[in-house]
Amino acid sequence: MILIGERINAGFKDIKEAIINKDPDPIREWAQKQTEKGATYLDVNMGTASANPDDFLWMIDTVQNEVETPICLDNNKLNVQKLAIPTCKKPPLVNSVLAIDEKMDEIFPTVAEYNASIIGLSQDAGGSPKNADDRMVQAGNVFAKAMEHGLDPDQLFLDPIVMPLKFMQEQAPEILKAAGQYTLFSDPSPHIVCGLSNISNGAKNKSLMDRTFITMLIANGADAAILDVMDDELVNAILTAELMMNRGIYADSYIEAFRG
Amino acid sequence: MILIGERINAGFKDIKEAIINKDPDPIREWAQKQTEKGATYLDVNMGTASANPDDFLWMIDTVQNEVETPICLDNNKLNVQKLAIPTCKKPPLVNSVLAIDEKMDEIFPTVAEYNASIIGLSQDAGGSPKNADDRMVQAGNVFAKAMEHGLDPDQLFLDPIVMPLKFMQEQAPEILKAAGQYTLFSDPSPHIVCGLSNISNGAKNKSLMDRTFITMLIANGADAAILDVMDDELVNAILTAELMMNRGIYADSYIEAFRG
Repeated sequence: MILIGERINAGFKDIKEAIINKDPDPIREWAQKQTEKGATYLDVNMGTASANPDDFLWMIDTVQNEVETPICLDNNKLNVQKLAIPTCKKPPLVNSVLAIDEKMDEIFPTVAEYNASIIGLSQDAGGSPKNADDRMVQAGNVFAKAMEHGLDPDQLFLDPIVMPLKFMQEQAPEILKAAGQYTLFSDPSPHIVCGLSNISNGAKNKSLMDRTFITMLIANGADAAILDVMDDELVNAILTAELMMNRGIYADSYIEAFRG
Repeated sequence: MILIGERINAGFKDIKEAIINKDPDPIREWAQKQTEKGATYLDVNMGTASANPDDFLWMIDTVQNEVETPICLDNNKLNVQKLAIPTCKKPPLVNSVLAIDEKMDEIFPTVAEYNASIIGLSQDAGGSPKNADDRMVQAGNVFAKAMEHGLDPDQLFLDPIVMPLKFMQEQAPEILKAAGQYTLFSDPSPHIVCGLSNISNGAKNKSLMDRTFITMLIANGADAAILDVMDDELVNAILTAELMMNRGIYADSYIEAFRG
């Protein structure tokens, strides 16, 4: 499983203050802690704390000076992403691009040039997807455009767009169904990723909901998630679900082996 | 979700002794406790504690004198099952029949007559199923035979045969895949059930493995399981997975509501 640590994000108060004060310590600390917990990538997002691309580059540098874990570049401006990609020591994961031709044509060449990967959203200019079929159409456009630009399916992370169960419950089975269909694009299939905590947005029992939903999404082919890697129960559920998919070999010590 | 409480089974020492000593108390106690925990059916199995059908009927009577929860008749002799079905106050679930024509022809008429339900195994005289396709062939035979005998899909519980992850890991994704295919037999589909604890047989982290696997099986259409209803974390995972499938309406208090 590709675990993308969500914590270096200005949506969290300590990171927001770190950016404003140019204090590297909280960023270093979360880079270290998430890496120790097994993060495959570290998401880096400056949110509304700054509009200055240099602050984004500073965050990336701060992480890269602390750990070797590759970066998941999380910025909603593609021109900032294009600035950031070449500064990454290891090929980054670019988070994210909408299923809009001009947007994809803008970012895919740089992704290809730097052997990076990219999260393609199942969403176009028309707004949020309404059901599984809608998601499949958007993801199909992303997949076709990625192939056109010479990306390998392994460089593409399809995101079915997770929505809060509490407010849009009818979307949950549509998301699961869409993920199952994404596995059919190629063999091996593109990666399937989600922003996991969206499912429990506004709800009680967040951790239970997150681990239940990702387990179900893994059953439908997901192999990546942006999540709280500090949540041991969540990661234990993921490790177990992966064994059920016959990815990796069972040993009684499979959890300890991951933690070690 | 149809929760079938596994605990009144001579595989557990207290139940074995209860049968041998004709002591109704352990049976009464587990009937009560599992009912309080939300069991839909109570599995009753005398295992090797006795070969006398009267002991099976005594167990059933003991349960029925204590609670109103319907019985899941768990006996490997179909003639004993046929004796037991008419003694049930509520239509029982018969556990189970192999996908063998003569066996199904022997039990289905009584199931139909008493408006009972039956678990049909994805296994014939040739032994355990080897993969998803094999399971699908067996389940197809069960489904066709059940329809031939006038059963409603709602009376049929298809069991993909869960096998231990520790010893037969490659079977886990095959089981999940088979379940997903069973949902296509009819609309609404037959029930999909499993003997859940088989997945963690011989393994560590049994509860984690059980709740992870049932969550994945629910994502593939399962709506029933024989399980440890006393395991709150397991039942919480099931309640949450059902919400993700948009069965039942989300409320912040969904767990408390079930427990209440």
